[in-house]
Amino acid sequence: MFRVDLNSDLGESFGRYTIGMDDKIIPMITSANVACGYHASDPVVMNKTLAMAKEAGIRVGAHPGFPDLMGFGRRNLSVSQEEAKAYTLYQLGALDAFCRINGLKMQHVKPHGALYNMAAKDYELSKAICEAIKEFDQELIVLALSGGELAHAAKDMGLRTALEVFADRAYEEDGTLVNRRKEGAMITDETLAISRVVRMIKEKKVTAITGKDIPIQADSVCVHGDGEKALAFVEKIRAALQDEGIEICSLDEIV
Amino acid sequence: MFRVDLNSDLGESFGRYTIGMDDKIIPMITSANVACGYHASDPVVMNKTLAMAKEAGIRVGAHPGFPDLMGFGRRNLSVSQEEAKAYTLYQLGALDAFCRINGLKMQHVKPHGALYNMAAKDYELSKAICEAIKEFDQELIVLALSGGELAHAAKDMGLRTALEVFADRAYEEDGTLVNRRKEGAMITDETLAISRVVRMIKEKKVTAITGKDIPIQADSVCVHGDGEKALAFVEKIRAALQDEGIEICSLDEIV
Amino acid sequence: MFRVDLNSDLGESFGRYTIGMDDKIIPMITSANVACGYHASDPVVMNKTLAMAKEAGIRVGAHPGFPDLMGFGRRNLSVSQEEAKAYTLYQLGALDAFCRINGLKMQHVKPHGALYNMAAKDYELSKAICEAIKEFDQELIVLALSGGELAHAAKDMGLRTALEVFADRAYEEDGTLVNRRKEGAMITDETLAISRVVRMIKEKKVTAITGKDIPIQADSVCVHGDGEKALAFVEKIRAALQDEGIEICSLDEIV
Amino acid sequence: MFRVDLNSDLGESFGRYTIGMDDKIIPMITSANVACGYHASDPVVMNKTLAMAKEAGIRVGAHPGFPDLMGFGRRNLSVSQEEAKAYTLYQLGALDAFCRINGLKMQHVKPHGALYNMAAKDYELSKAICEAIKEFDQELIVLALSGGELAHAAKDMGLRTALEVFADRAYEEDGTLVNRRKEGAMITDETLAISRVVRMIKEKKVTAITGKDIPIQADSVCVHGDGEKALAFVEKIRAALQDEGIEICSLDEIV
Repeated sequence: MFRVDLNSDLGESFGRYTIGMDDKIIPMITSANVACGYHASDPVVMNKTLAMAKEAGIRVGAHPGFPDLMGFGRRNLSVSQEEAKAYTLYQLGALDAFCRINGLKMQHVKPHGALYNMAAKDYELSKAICEAIKEFDQELIVLALSGGELAHAAKDMGLRTALEVFADRAYEEDGTLVNRRKEGAMITDETLAISRVVRMIKEKKVTAITGKDIPIQADSVCVHGDGEKALAFVEKIRAALQDEGIEICSLDEIV
Repeated sequence: MFRVDLNSDLGESFGRYTIGMDDKIIPMITSANVACGYHASDPVVMNKTLAMAKEAGIRVGAHPGFPDLMGFGRRNLSVSQEEAKAYTLYQLGALDAFCRINGLKMQHVKPHGALYNMAAKDYELSKAICEAIKEFDQELIVLALSGGELAHAAKDMGLRTALEVFADRAYEEDGTLVNRRKEGAMITDETLAISRVVRMIKEKKVTAITGKDIPIQADSVCVHGDGEKALAFVEKIRAALQDEGIEICSLDEIV
Repeated sequence: MFRVDLNSDLGESFGRYTIGMDDKIIPMITSANVACGYHASDPVVMNKTLAMAKEAGIRVGAHPGFPDLMGFGRRNLSVSQEEAKAYTLYQLGALDAFCRINGLKMQHVKPHGALYNMAAKDYELSKAICEAIKEFDQELIVLALSGGELAHAAKDMGLRTALEVFADRAYEEDGTLVNRRKEGAMITDETLAISRVVRMIKEKKVTAITGKDIPIQADSVCVHGDGEKALAFVEKIRAALQDEGIEICSLDEIV
Repeated sequence: MFRVDLNSDLGESFGRYTIGMDDKIIPMITSANVACGYHASDPVVMNKTLAMAKEAGIRVGAHPGFPDLMGFGRRNLSVSQEEAKAYTLYQLGALDAFCRINGLKMQHVKPHGALYNMAAKDYELSKAICEAIKEFDQELIVLALSGGELAHAAKDMGLRTALEVFADRAYEEDGTLVNRRKEGAMITDETLAISRVVRMIKEKKVTAITGKDIPIQADSVCVHGDGEKALAFVEKIRAALQDEGIEICSLDEIV
């Protein structure tokens, strides 16, 4: 029996600013990565987001990012390991307060944006993030890029680790994502994208941009809810997974 | 046997900015109110502050404030009750993460600055803060101005409540603090200030600015560590309390 | 010949967050109040907004607010007069840099949100704001609530002053706006709203919520571009003004 | 006749937080780099700093940095060129407002911290900063690391450029600063440091860390006022310069 989790970034609105169609994507996913007030969100939004997740019965995780609201956490910031650990802890704790009052148990942690991308390439940074996670709650699952350094650090530290794949991105032979600026980095053909995802789950393989098949592990697929087109694509993925007999379930049933 | 707690605001440094002589005041107090990153502090400072408190064996509490770093949380901000509750929860959770990794259990919550002053006069705002505290951890002690609305709301909600007095401030007949702008608001004579504190603890009375004796409860005395003079005054209070046979102990041994 | 300005708040997007349909409202107004990075906006947004205003040939003004991004500058903040003056100057200067590189001359200043509302009731706060404006550029027009303290302070200081009216709000007998929480505060009948605006301009009178006619001066009407319905209403106001032979022109042609 | 400017970073306090001994260093320098509210400072501090500079008769310049108060602008942030230009403009404009009301004319611009270091190595980033400066006021002097890319971009764009040297830092053969983490990066011998500065000014040469003499241009020496020891060192440099017949004067008398 094949199983996969569908995760999406949620709760990224801030004050009077709204981003995303959280109410639309929630019924389609099994794990929500919830912003914690550093790159996006605020305490009122965090509470509302968790209340919605609770009602829908999906699992939630922390989505810590850099303290860069103006850049939405998407710009590399040269933090020290001490800062990376402390910033992660701060955000885990803050989100946990809202989990607690909403009767939810935090399932996982997935770093956001530039922190995610930097961690994927930097073992020491990843270690700092994982230390925060482990000291905070050693049962938490680290949701990391398949093949990246965060996954390595999490496994080395004995943390439960789930590997994430992207439907719309091409892969290099070493399993890393093709840089968005390179030609062919994005898989724009939806049918191809979906068949790649199915193969990643069932055969644990994907064709790299070079044409060579490489091994890959797909515990979770990252999907987006920031537009009608994105939502329709998630619907297609869900339908395809069901057709293929792949069960969609939350991370903690997989890892 | 008389007992009293000595509390002080700590961990208010931020990034490269330093405020306070935390290492000097810590050995003299029993309860530290630790800033949580909204009016002051950052995650690295929070972790260092809790590590120092742990080593010194003192108890710690959250010191949540308004999201107003530029004004150090000292300016009234007309937040809604929903915001007040969510901001309190966010900060409780964030600090709790650092308590957890430092092997500390959070003892109490004392709002900071303008949030403290506004809550003392606003029952509905106080209720919002107390709901956050109660839903987060119903064992937490609310440290509130003696006679203020926060104390009333905390008691009404069944929360453990500790009452705070000030050595250097005059009181109105209704038990509230005399506005700093009014003449006689500050008790500048240190000997008088100390004898007033002793009387508040032993006789549960203080002479209001009108000359009339009023009842007061002194579970904790707020002291400051932001200068040599302030530190010397704390030393004097400690000596006087010991001379009078008043035991200095943390809040949770009193409430 | 009757003339009136139509003003609207613009440039309130921030980072990846978008608010307002600036491109739609710009062709319908004569004066834009541009956010300056405190309650909303960022430098990239400010530059884009001014470039759009320049291209459309409309006049621009600064829209300074409280440093409260999380509350969109809509929450009262008890700043000192020194702070109010300095915050206003900071934002005027910042916006002026983008005026300069876009070949625009700043026409006016209209405080935002809570700063606008507090100033309308507080002469001393208004004086602080006007000092900033006068010392920065004494040719600037202050766009203020008709009948409010900001208008009084601006006139007392010899600043050019334009008075603003609202189509969708009821007025008290003293010329102030009826509090939004009171019944009848909002004029929801669009035809009535428009006829009131026309009367304010032509007869300099409006019927207060008590039924009594009061004098009012309408140099500018505040309109909104944050939705299709709002845009349609502006279209109706424009058509009505033209039918009535009222010329729509920018503030500096009126004051 | 030899001449040199002494510059120092000022006005880096923030809200209730104080950094630096601005009143002590001001009488010893000729050019102040004033923080603009992004990496440090706030509008009240900016105004006070410029008032002090005005009274002392020294020249002032903008010291724009990254929007990273928590990191004091010392952490690399991967901003786009559009962002770098807009952030620079925003800060130039904001500071200029306070120059204007204090009767000062802005003399120069020196990027702060990580922005300074990144610009020194990145011609495209430097170009974005210089475009902001040029479009804002083409008379402004760019104060840049001797030999760095900011100096190259400024010269290429026809901006007045002043080159800065450091008394306490070793140089590589290509004229760049030796990385602080390398042994020998800091010149700790004060007598040696001062003789190096004198030689840089008089002979336009300095001995690189390799032992080889390299050409260098010293229009300004960066000095610090953040402690008694730093202040005493500035006093020594001043005395040495005077002994050597080197006139200490502001940048615009040199460039």
